[in-house]
Amino acid sequence: MNQTQNTIKVAIIMGSKSDLPVMQDAADVLQELGVAFEITVVSAHRTPERMFSYAKSAADRGLKVIIAGAGGAAHLPGMVASLTHLPVIGVPVKSGNSIDGWDSVLSILQMPNGIPVATVALNAAKNAGILAAQILAVGDEYLVQNLIQYKNQLAKKVEDAAAEMKKEGFPSDF
Amino acid sequence: MNQTQNTIKVAIIMGSKSDLPVMQDAADVLQELGVAFEITVVSAHRTPERMFSYAKSAADRGLKVIIAGAGGAAHLPGMVASLTHLPVIGVPVKSGNSIDGWDSVLSILQMPNGIPVATVALNAAKNAGILAAQILAVGDEYLVQNLIQYKNQLAKKVEDAAAEMKKEGFPSDF
Amino acid sequence: MNQTQNTIKVAIIMGSKSDLPVMQDAADVLQELGVAFEITVVSAHRTPERMFSYAKSAADRGLKVIIAGAGGAAHLPGMVASLTHLPVIGVPVKSGNSIDGWDSVLSILQMPNGIPVATVALNAAKNAGILAAQILAVGDEYLVQNLIQYKNQLAKKVEDAAAEMKKEGFPSDF
Amino acid sequence: MNQTQNTIKVAIIMGSKSDLPVMQDAADVLQELGVAFEITVVSAHRTPERMFSYAKSAADRGLKVIIAGAGGAAHLPGMVASLTHLPVIGVPVKSGNSIDGWDSVLSILQMPNGIPVATVALNAAKNAGILAAQILAVGDEYLVQNLIQYKNQLAKKVEDAAAEMKKEGFPSDF
Amino acid sequence: MNQTQNTIKVAIIMGSKSDLPVMQDAADVLQELGVAFEITVVSAHRTPERMFSYAKSAADRGLKVIIAGAGGAAHLPGMVASLTHLPVIGVPVKSGNSIDGWDSVLSILQMPNGIPVATVALNAAKNAGILAAQILAVGDEYLVQNLIQYKNQLAKKVEDAAAEMKKEGFPSDF
Amino acid sequence: MNQTQNTIKVAIIMGSKSDLPVMQDAADVLQELGVAFEITVVSAHRTPERMFSYAKSAADRGLKVIIAGAGGAAHLPGMVASLTHLPVIGVPVKSGNSIDGWDSVLSILQMPNGIPVATVALNAAKNAGILAAQILAVGDEYLVQNLIQYKNQLAKKVEDAAAEMKKEGFPSDF
Amino acid sequence: MNQTQNTIKVAIIMGSKSDLPVMQDAADVLQELGVAFEITVVSAHRTPERMFSYAKSAADRGLKVIIAGAGGAAHLPGMVASLTHLPVIGVPVKSGNSIDGWDSVLSILQMPNGIPVATVALNAAKNAGILAAQILAVGDEYLVQNLIQYKNQLAKKVEDAAAEMKKEGFPSDF
Amino acid sequence: MNQTQNTIKVAIIMGSKSDLPVMQDAADVLQELGVAFEITVVSAHRTPERMFSYAKSAADRGLKVIIAGAGGAAHLPGMVASLTHLPVIGVPVKSGNSIDGWDSVLSILQMPNGIPVATVALNAAKNAGILAAQILAVGDEYLVQNLIQYKNQLAKKVEDAAAEMKKEGFPSDF
Repeated sequence: MNQTQNTIKVAIIMGSKSDLPVMQDAADVLQELGVAFEITVVSAHRTPERMFSYAKSAADRGLKVIIAGAGGAAHLPGMVASLTHLPVIGVPVKSGNSIDGWDSVLSILQMPNGIPVATVALNAAKNAGILAAQILAVGDEYLVQNLIQYKNQLAKKVEDAAAEMKKEGFPSDF
Repeated sequence: MNQTQNTIKVAIIMGSKSDLPVMQDAADVLQELGVAFEITVVSAHRTPERMFSYAKSAADRGLKVIIAGAGGAAHLPGMVASLTHLPVIGVPVKSGNSIDGWDSVLSILQMPNGIPVATVALNAAKNAGILAAQILAVGDEYLVQNLIQYKNQLAKKVEDAAAEMKKEGFPSDF
Repeated sequence: MNQTQNTIKVAIIMGSKSDLPVMQDAADVLQELGVAFEITVVSAHRTPERMFSYAKSAADRGLKVIIAGAGGAAHLPGMVASLTHLPVIGVPVKSGNSIDGWDSVLSILQMPNGIPVATVALNAAKNAGILAAQILAVGDEYLVQNLIQYKNQLAKKVEDAAAEMKKEGFPSDF
Repeated sequence: MNQTQNTIKVAIIMGSKSDLPVMQDAADVLQELGVAFEITVVSAHRTPERMFSYAKSAADRGLKVIIAGAGGAAHLPGMVASLTHLPVIGVPVKSGNSIDGWDSVLSILQMPNGIPVATVALNAAKNAGILAAQILAVGDEYLVQNLIQYKNQLAKKVEDAAAEMKKEGFPSDF
Repeated sequence: MNQTQNTIKVAIIMGSKSDLPVMQDAADVLQELGVAFEITVVSAHRTPERMFSYAKSAADRGLKVIIAGAGGAAHLPGMVASLTHLPVIGVPVKSGNSIDGWDSVLSILQMPNGIPVATVALNAAKNAGILAAQILAVGDEYLVQNLIQYKNQLAKKVEDAAAEMKKEGFPSDF
Repeated sequence: MNQTQNTIKVAIIMGSKSDLPVMQDAADVLQELGVAFEITVVSAHRTPERMFSYAKSAADRGLKVIIAGAGGAAHLPGMVASLTHLPVIGVPVKSGNSIDGWDSVLSILQMPNGIPVATVALNAAKNAGILAAQILAVGDEYLVQNLIQYKNQLAKKVEDAAAEMKKEGFPSDF
Repeated sequence: MNQTQNTIKVAIIMGSKSDLPVMQDAADVLQELGVAFEITVVSAHRTPERMFSYAKSAADRGLKVIIAGAGGAAHLPGMVASLTHLPVIGVPVKSGNSIDGWDSVLSILQMPNGIPVATVALNAAKNAGILAAQILAVGDEYLVQNLIQYKNQLAKKVEDAAAEMKKEGFPSDF
Repeated sequence: MNQTQNTIKVAIIMGSKSDLPVMQDAADVLQELGVAFEITVVSAHRTPERMFSYAKSAADRGLKVIIAGAGGAAHLPGMVASLTHLPVIGVPVKSGNSIDGWDSVLSILQMPNGIPVATVALNAAKNAGILAAQILAVGDEYLVQNLIQYKNQLAKKVEDAAAEMKKEGFPSDF
């Protein structure tokens, strides 16, 4: 066992508990990669004070990376990024009355100069989790090995699918 | 002279001084309608504390309506709305690297349930000013008269243009 | 009981009775906030005369704010705004053959200079109701208190959800 | 000379005189096709009464087709269509703060069932003029001949351009 | 009974029989308005020769207006318009793999100068039928009366819905 | 029997086995046209080495055309095209979290100068198969005949549908 | 010298001579690759008969690939594809009143099942030329060598640019 | 002076030297923050082998973060991410024939599960540089201080602009 698993360095926050089915993917992949995390609800619009104190105290509480997911006019990732020097990963969530997800994507991605948000694909909380692990791995050789292994598994699944198709009779000489 | 002109009830704030050429239109039309205002720069992303204290103190400072303009991933109108019970009017500004203004529009308009922003058209700071006056006019008969007169002028300009075209030889029996 | 509840100051109109499931949210939140309202069908395209006389008589009938919802090439909010000096709140409705709601949004939001419509998010009739209350609250301290309480409830629900997640075993130190 | 040239059967109206450079194309092609027209400014938003009386009296004034051009949240074509049984041709104009013309197009095209607007391409006032002539030609053999001749000229210009390219040395055996 | 009902002056064509559920609306409203029509399948892409001879012979066969519906890269309305001097009404159909209908709309609407297509809203075959009747009504007083009556019915339905809502207890003084 | 059926000249590859329901259409139409093919899974992102060696060896393995389908940020067609001189046909697949297919379409279509991908419509694997056959038919008269016959069948189906509609009572004189 | 340079196997056609500045790139790259071509103007909308006879006679005239460029509601590539069994490459041209090129792209790309158009990027006539050469190279080893050489040159230019940047003082160890 | 300035941990790569004016912003802000970097041209499409060896060797060469900028169908960031376990930051560049930048944004952002790219706003290379510094700062207290100072400067500029506006006579009590 290594230190990565003991100290919580990654936060997963979301604008509403209704985003949990999407954001759970970040938690699952972090678990799989051996990265401890905390996860809670913080709404930029409904609990601005909670959001302020969460973001302002994050570095002091030992967090190293924040994953923030939100939908519609999604201000949580950008506002958290404005309040901390930690890297913030934004997950655009395709919520109920979202206009096909465009609102979520653009209001997270198009941050002004000075305040970046590392944006991932629509609903791609899993990739947010992997990215958080990649960031921590900059100073953690154990995590590097986990990430390399994870990548190998991804490749293996594709090769298995290719082999499976051959068995099912799809012609292929490769 | 009436009281409307003496007390500042409308605030115009913008995310960057580079938004001033757009936001000036709000100031000009408020002036024209006889509504006093204050105008300053408040950035949600670069000065989140300033934004917080501005929004939280706005009602106590006697403000009644806040006009907030911003571009790109524009969080200023929505965050101010989350921090005050005053009506907030959002002006999507088409700034430099904006994606055709879509980002500004969607990140201001698509606010979640509970926290409305009264959004006007792209770059339409003039309409934000008029809307602020309409809101104040709910309790101010003097302003009602100014707004009616303003509407009459709009109509007159169209009728003048129609008359002008006739003089220039464009055929019309109407 | 206070005066707000007795006099009808807010109108909710919609282009078609099929918009009622969306527009009901405006009625419900006004009810919750203690604001009396009237609600009916007025179509800009199918009943232009009705729309004209509705909009022209609105101020004289004592109305202070008009909420208008429509879908597709949604002309009701803008046309009503052209016929009254009252503030008009537009609700873009995502109706049947709408192109993902873009038509409703753009034909309500992108009003020309001189005639603002306070546009809220797609289908966000609830926010239209809150905005109407915020406008009336400019001159009504009782409503201010209701709005502050409403905001507190929003915050409380988020905090409850955060607490709930902790109980369900999601790790969080905040 | 024929009757078509004497009686005004086509109206060209526009929301603002600033639309004239675009709408002039309709006038020019009607002139070329021998169709008399009137042309003026009628704003749905700034002169709703003028728009109402224009549309309501159009048929009685002998008009047979109305071409209406407007930009942004363009309500003129649709509102005129709601007030007359005459065919209305809508020209979406790409005006100043329009969002790339999408607002003009969608707010003219996406009319609800019952109230059609015959929409042409963005800024395509020339095609609106031709379409008006095609509509009148349903009962006017002289106009049919003009339209056939116009089509032949279009073809000839392409064939001339093809011949020109050959002369300029571009290889072609066709 | 009048002549309108006896001679077929309107054609309804569609790119595929799978467009029939949409295009049926055009047939139904023409029936309701007392306009005789023919209706068949003509594919620009799969039967270009059939499309050519259909369009080239349309005027000689006595047709006065052609309604053409198609989806995706919808070339039928525009190609028919290029082959006849008759007015052509285009109905963008939202078909299976269409990209939200945008392809159908743009490939029908955005015709080049010289060859207009009178485009109606996405899937709005009913409006195409009404527009065809409006075009024929330019020379047919009987049809004018039918159209006025149709418009009155549209208005009545809205007024009935308003009355219905009152009965159901929705408050309204208008 | 001819040589076309014996040698595999067309490859169908896809980024994920989950794309098979879409890509199967390419296989089916190639079968119908008498063109032998191989089909397998090659992911640009999960198996970049497999993709590299597949693309680099394709010409030497006797392949003449490669059909590549992928969704989201779809890099497979473009990367394969960068690694081989063979013509590459790209099929944008509308996958799960794709933003309405726009991402798939744009990331396949908008290749930089020098490296074309022959892009077909969203999910249009059938057309990719036909296009592959058309390319091979440049040097294969047998395939030309198959393609002509295929086109004739397409036309016949439309004519049959037209006849069917007549039988079902839809009026048509054409 | 080889046979490829003597026989014209590629046609470049465009909807209007105003598309020539874009389409010239196809001619230039074909020249560079040693592929003879013809180039002319053929408009689907203004010269439908010319387009028909061009497309129907193309194969008999010895053509093997057709490159067709057009803008707006661009029907030329798709209609030519419907009239010949030859592979057709479509170039969406961003013309004057095009809506940002979306109309050109969608009306070429989104062809129905049965009639593919090999679409390249907006204005990417150079890629259309390369793709035509790749298609001919399926049966022409000389062309294969030209294409491989062309690819090598592309790579060399990038490597030269990288070397240039180093010389200009940009730090790089790769 | 500290170690950060001596070892190159950040790479800036771009698909074409023509992207340099955009990507220079990343270099400048890294310089300002005291982070050493290398910068060069690597094209996914024109130099796939160079890209492969660059990405595969990056970690071994001591790099910790890769910033990759590209336009159009931008595959560089995603392909590099598929070939390394390092965090990759993608900068969508609005290049010449890009469709308003949408292609660049979507083909970088919408990566499939398993292979994240940390995407920043269109042309926002400055934010890519800051994000790279934030990632390195996870293990570098010196950099944390630089980032905090940088944030303070951003805030100060806004406060200075607010003061400046007051001096210029714009009314404000805040």
